[in-house]
Amino acid sequence: MKDITISQYELVYNAFSFGIAAMGATTLFLWLSRNQVSRAYQTAITISGLVTAIALYHYFRIFNSWGSSFVVVNDTITATGVKFNDAYRYVDWLLTVPLLLIELILVMRLTAGETVSKSVRLGALAALMIILGYPGEISAIPNTRWIFWALSMIPFTIILIELFVGLKNAIASQPESVRGLVNGARFLTVISWCFYPVVFILPMIGFTGGAATTAVQVGYTISDIVAKAVFGLLIYAIAVRKTHAESNPDGILIAV
Amino acid sequence: MKDITISQYELVYNAFSFGIAAMGATTLFLWLSRNQVSRAYQTAITISGLVTAIALYHYFRIFNSWGSSFVVVNDTITATGVKFNDAYRYVDWLLTVPLLLIELILVMRLTAGETVSKSVRLGALAALMIILGYPGEISAIPNTRWIFWALSMIPFTIILIELFVGLKNAIASQPESVRGLVNGARFLTVISWCFYPVVFILPMIGFTGGAATTAVQVGYTISDIVAKAVFGLLIYAIAVRKTHAESNPDGILIAV
Repeated sequence: MKDITISQYELVYNAFSFGIAAMGATTLFLWLSRNQVSRAYQTAITISGLVTAIALYHYFRIFNSWGSSFVVVNDTITATGVKFNDAYRYVDWLLTVPLLLIELILVMRLTAGETVSKSVRLGALAALMIILGYPGEISAIPNTRWIFWALSMIPFTIILIELFVGLKNAIASQPESVRGLVNGARFLTVISWCFYPVVFILPMIGFTGGAATTAVQVGYTISDIVAKAVFGLLIYAIAVRKTHAESNPDGILIAV
Repeated sequence: MKDITISQYELVYNAFSFGIAAMGATTLFLWLSRNQVSRAYQTAITISGLVTAIALYHYFRIFNSWGSSFVVVNDTITATGVKFNDAYRYVDWLLTVPLLLIELILVMRLTAGETVSKSVRLGALAALMIILGYPGEISAIPNTRWIFWALSMIPFTIILIELFVGLKNAIASQPESVRGLVNGARFLTVISWCFYPVVFILPMIGFTGGAATTAVQVGYTISDIVAKAVFGLLIYAIAVRKTHAESNPDGILIAV
């Protein structure tokens, strides 16, 4: 990681700061707007804001860790020798990914039994996925990376199939005004999640040195913003529309 | 940027601190006063406060970056060699400018369809405008600056025409008590936005060295305060008056 250029360093630096601003702004928006949705959906919004708040904390840590790894003075970049701590991401995901799945399940408003069983099942699979990915992430040996990548892809695939197929069936039970948005949430989840295994294998397929580090860090940051902040706002939009649909079952239009 | 004088350095330094105070105070005022407007306008106020909160974060970062670029000891200013990070402004604008447009659209309370289509259209144009401006801002070559300035001016002009003409037509549908304020918001947007392209070209028309840096930084700070904090307060005033007008459609006067 020592052959990074100043512009690569700055791109990563500014991407992390953008992550802080995006996560912080989303958290504040969700928590301030929580009273705009009915009681049934307030927990989903609380948790959506929690996900971005946890990410906010970790982006502060990641930003500071990155800042202490290099020093730029008079247009020269020098590695300080202080190691950039990538583990923050995994700690973040271990907490936020199960919560992300739970916010989606909660906003669907399934039966209590289904809500609990799906949350526990998908939450546990998500935690397993993160734990299996970590030994690969910290390894520099391509083979080790591939083994843990493949292991992690097993729960990853199960979760995505369950969400993609399972949610499709659940859409019919949703009010008509939110079916498009729920469908959007399904696709956003699948597309944003697919970035992660791709970013993970970048260093194994020829991206090396500063370019690899930059691609991995900027890639993860964009994925996190889409999977957490944009996703959280979509959950909020679904909750607002369901609140209106359920208080007006006859479809009387209320301007939002 | 190395030939800056102590008084120029201090002027910029204090302007940034003023920016922090103004953005922070506006955020707190807007969020604390949110319950003074009816539910229909609370999202507009939440977002107005979000814009100043995001700006608050970035002014902290800008202030700290400026502080580490120079050191003043015993009436001597020395550049530390640490680069002042101007990218914070662009990251800020990328988030806040689309939100600024959305708060104005929300307070107009158009139909749900118009609200969504206008927000998406103007929000996307605003993001494009910022992205096109950035390569010019970080370049020291006047020709490169002019090219990206000109490219960025295309979405800029489209947005302003749409706001200026589009809002003029929408004014007739607003309660009489707010028509003057909405008109004020129209003019404030156009005038405050016009500062940015002017500040951008200062280094290309003869302002060089410390004077150019000072003019650009102080100019952007004043523009930001007007376009975000003053504008947010105007949105709040419109929301308060509309709340009163709509709860008293017969025009019975209520003291604000």
